[in-house]
Amino acid sequence: MAILEREVTGAVAHLRLNAPDRLNALSDEMIAELHGALDDVASDSTVRAVILSGVGKAFCAGHDLKQMTAGRQAADGGAAYFKDLFDRCAAMMARVQSMPQPVIAQVHGIATAAGCQLVATCDLAVAAHGTRFGVNGVNIGLFCSTPMVALSRNIPRKQAFEMLTTGDFIEADRAVELGLVNHAVPQHDLASTAEDLANRIASKLGSAVKIGKHAFYEQLQMPVAQAYAYTGEVMVTNMLNPDTAEGIDAFIEKRPPDWSQ
Amino acid sequence: MAILEREVTGAVAHLRLNAPDRLNALSDEMIAELHGALDDVASDSTVRAVILSGVGKAFCAGHDLKQMTAGRQAADGGAAYFKDLFDRCAAMMARVQSMPQPVIAQVHGIATAAGCQLVATCDLAVAAHGTRFGVNGVNIGLFCSTPMVALSRNIPRKQAFEMLTTGDFIEADRAVELGLVNHAVPQHDLASTAEDLANRIASKLGSAVKIGKHAFYEQLQMPVAQAYAYTGEVMVTNMLNPDTAEGIDAFIEKRPPDWSQ
Amino acid sequence: MAILEREVTGAVAHLRLNAPDRLNALSDEMIAELHGALDDVASDSTVRAVILSGVGKAFCAGHDLKQMTAGRQAADGGAAYFKDLFDRCAAMMARVQSMPQPVIAQVHGIATAAGCQLVATCDLAVAAHGTRFGVNGVNIGLFCSTPMVALSRNIPRKQAFEMLTTGDFIEADRAVELGLVNHAVPQHDLASTAEDLANRIASKLGSAVKIGKHAFYEQLQMPVAQAYAYTGEVMVTNMLNPDTAEGIDAFIEKRPPDWSQ
Repeated sequence: MAILEREVTGAVAHLRLNAPDRLNALSDEMIAELHGALDDVASDSTVRAVILSGVGKAFCAGHDLKQMTAGRQAADGGAAYFKDLFDRCAAMMARVQSMPQPVIAQVHGIATAAGCQLVATCDLAVAAHGTRFGVNGVNIGLFCSTPMVALSRNIPRKQAFEMLTTGDFIEADRAVELGLVNHAVPQHDLASTAEDLANRIASKLGSAVKIGKHAFYEQLQMPVAQAYAYTGEVMVTNMLNPDTAEGIDAFIEKRPPDWSQ
Repeated sequence: MAILEREVTGAVAHLRLNAPDRLNALSDEMIAELHGALDDVASDSTVRAVILSGVGKAFCAGHDLKQMTAGRQAADGGAAYFKDLFDRCAAMMARVQSMPQPVIAQVHGIATAAGCQLVATCDLAVAAHGTRFGVNGVNIGLFCSTPMVALSRNIPRKQAFEMLTTGDFIEADRAVELGLVNHAVPQHDLASTAEDLANRIASKLGSAVKIGKHAFYEQLQMPVAQAYAYTGEVMVTNMLNPDTAEGIDAFIEKRPPDWSQ
Repeated sequence: MAILEREVTGAVAHLRLNAPDRLNALSDEMIAELHGALDDVASDSTVRAVILSGVGKAFCAGHDLKQMTAGRQAADGGAAYFKDLFDRCAAMMARVQSMPQPVIAQVHGIATAAGCQLVATCDLAVAAHGTRFGVNGVNIGLFCSTPMVALSRNIPRKQAFEMLTTGDFIEADRAVELGLVNHAVPQHDLASTAEDLANRIASKLGSAVKIGKHAFYEQLQMPVAQAYAYTGEVMVTNMLNPDTAEGIDAFIEKRPPDWSQ
């Protein structure tokens, strides 16, 4: 049984964390599997959107604490292993945002620590009512320092600080209010909500979504003047795409576009 | 008939996009007119606040797609024209924020793509209930890359990403929740709400508002320590203004200030 | 009577602004007292959390305008004094965030100008229903340029801009919606709410909270890739702490941790 299930339905790739007995923890193996799958999907031009979900009770409970504890046996007390682990984890998170297709977190159960980071890192997120989110490492003496990079770029700072220092959980509706999640829906509507969102994105011109997603994260880190200089160039490239010309012509002529891709 | 109506009432300048048959699109002419009007108002010390509104059904539907399509006839497929267009549009948007007077978007009808960008760029915005906002270029294969610079600096990132990749619209009340708009009011209260806001700002000491608005956008792009060093200097300059001394004296003496301007 | 009351109860330090006749204004003396107290608490390893509150009607009404006006008597019109004042005030605000213990603002009454800045600067804030917050210096011709550094890093920009240019106040419930305050509660529950929050944070591993708080503000100012490189190192340091090893072991073994501190 693969710890990461992959399935492509039409233009949507489904990735499912499948280590329910470990609450889908981000073990060394899971990080590698997930990074590899994201790489494969990134290079598959037939895929237009990705849904990331979990099997079992939890969405993802963060790092694998038993594996990390085992890592302490090294002569350096685990220092080199931990450094490598957090680097690999951050690289996998970065891959979510660097891949061309939007990635939607479909969160049916608890998302904690690096699991909450994974939700914050995805481009979009939908969650079932009652689902709980937390960066609760502080409760065991391990402050969620890497998860906070993603979390504090999703929600206001005082609310992030509270979650980080109290370990308190928030529920899906509150996650929507704060900006961590796009939509909270009943559990039985969760999969269809994620699929509907994925399918609607998949129906757009893929090349436009690709350059847009890339530009989104680039410009966020630039001063405004630089962001406009950069996105102006992106718009020119987008305009020179024959499919975009067709899209605009079709709009003006009030007919559906006939796109090459 | 001017495509941009200008009117000054007391200390408030009204600029009205007036190309209702083109849904007030940001054509070459409209961008030039708007930039010119902002320049003129910026240098008019009798004006203390600006209200930007639109005539007809829409507030602004973004770029003029027919004009852009015509631009494709050039030997380079429009590349030079598009580059210049996005530069001119970004310069106009920058002018909204660099001018001394606060600019209030009064949004009575749909604001899409660069029209939504214009709302996001204004210092303040009020909208009528039911008004819809979208960055829907993705629907025709032209991702709203320049509009997202302004939008993603107004609302949380997952919500911005969703609007950009789905093309979905949000209504005025949701725009208030997300931060894109300050107040949503009934349509028949819209103009008076914008005027009240403008008049209240116009009643403040103009020189204080001017240095404050400039400092607002400057400090947003600085690390905190630099922002404090910078705004500390701004505060000193502000304190040394005789009108500010009078304002403080008046406050201490519980009387209205007698300002020179 | 000290203008700043200090009291340590268990692991929680209480600092109380105590100049009710001046609405707890941030006079030269109050800034010095507060900065000194924060320094003392910072070096007291028995303190795990700080509650900052005010005595009397107001939480804090900002700078001491009478004292500032007196400063104008200098040959330079007060320029050197004002510069020094804003530098000292900014240094005190920076100390709130640089000290190892989380600081909770307990806001029972009005917080204006630099008083609102103080709330925005604290790591966490709780407020009584009905409490009002404003950056209303614009009303006397002194734009709240330094307060806006903190405010605009707590709430969305259009809402910050409106508060700054209109001088309008917001109530506690709105402050929660915008992100300035974590929780609004009835007045009679305010102190217990702040204490509960402080005690819960104080129950965590102090060394983990300390490195987490420091990393929180550092990473906020970094590009994402740099933030991950930095926080990855922080996580390694945190993991190598024997108390963290004990915390993780205890969690795996389903028993309470036996921490050295």
